Amino acid sequence: MFGRIDHIGVAVADLESAIQLHTEAYGMPLVHRETIAEQGVEAVLLDVGESHVELLKPLAEDSPVGKFLAARGPGLHHVAYQVADVRAALDAARKAGLRLIDETPRTGIRGTQVAFLHPKTAGGVLTELVEAH
Amino acid sequence: MFGRIDHIGVAVADLESAIQLHTEAYGMPLVHRETIAEQGVEAVLLDVGESHVELLKPLAEDSPVGKFLAARGPGLHHVAYQVADVRAALDAARKAGLRLIDETPRTGIRGTQVAFLHPKTAGGVLTELVEAH
Repeated sequence: MFGRIDHIGVAVADLESAIQLHTEAYGMPLVHRETIAEQGVEAVLLDVGESHVELLKPLAEDSPVGKFLAARGPGLHHVAYQVADVRAALDAARKAGLRLIDETPRTGIRGTQVAFLHPKTAGGVLTELVEAH
Repeated sequence: MFGRIDHIGVAVADLESAIQLHTEAYGMPLVHRETIAEQGVEAVLLDVGESHVELLKPLAEDSPVGKFLAARGPGLHHVAYQVADVRAALDAARKAGLRLIDETPRTGIRGTQVAFLHPKTAGGVLTELVEAH
């Protein structure tokens, strides 16, 4: 069902220093930058192999990533796996008894179709499904 | 410097149910299982694309993963990136001003040479370097 790691999401308080860490010390090319108003984040994608690191800076303290930062500080926020068909993957997850955050796909970064599984039944991991282009 | 995501490490309290989630609901083949006494964990590797998910169950409550579980519950624990030469990558990280947990490489899962960067200067992310075979 899950084809590969699409990206890991990292919550950051200081976006510019996180970009500097990943581009200069880690040598990852910055490939995309986007403000996703409906998720309340400014997001930056960096390339690493066939995957990405997604840096997430909250636009407001009361956004989901803003609350995560306040509670736990900067760090690993979620993992996203590629699936061929996010709607079919959601159906399969529902049948497997997993709790969904998104009952239907929504538009994520770079116009991708995405959906989140609830950490409660995903081993404590906020898990995103991303439809491959 | 960093070639790809080698694996994400996930701290688990119930290893068998985490294996069931990843193999049955997520469709990831289980490829390796190992008790790493010096890290105080029982570890399981699952394949996903060119990367792995590494499930980590602590052998004792006072181990690093045991303390992580007690403080934060199950969930994302670390990310590991592949590098061509872990000793050279440690030198570069040191020169970039990053704090190291391991000053020299040690043996990780499946006999790999690995080293950890401290989350303090790695954006709050416990970051592992794994030498490619």
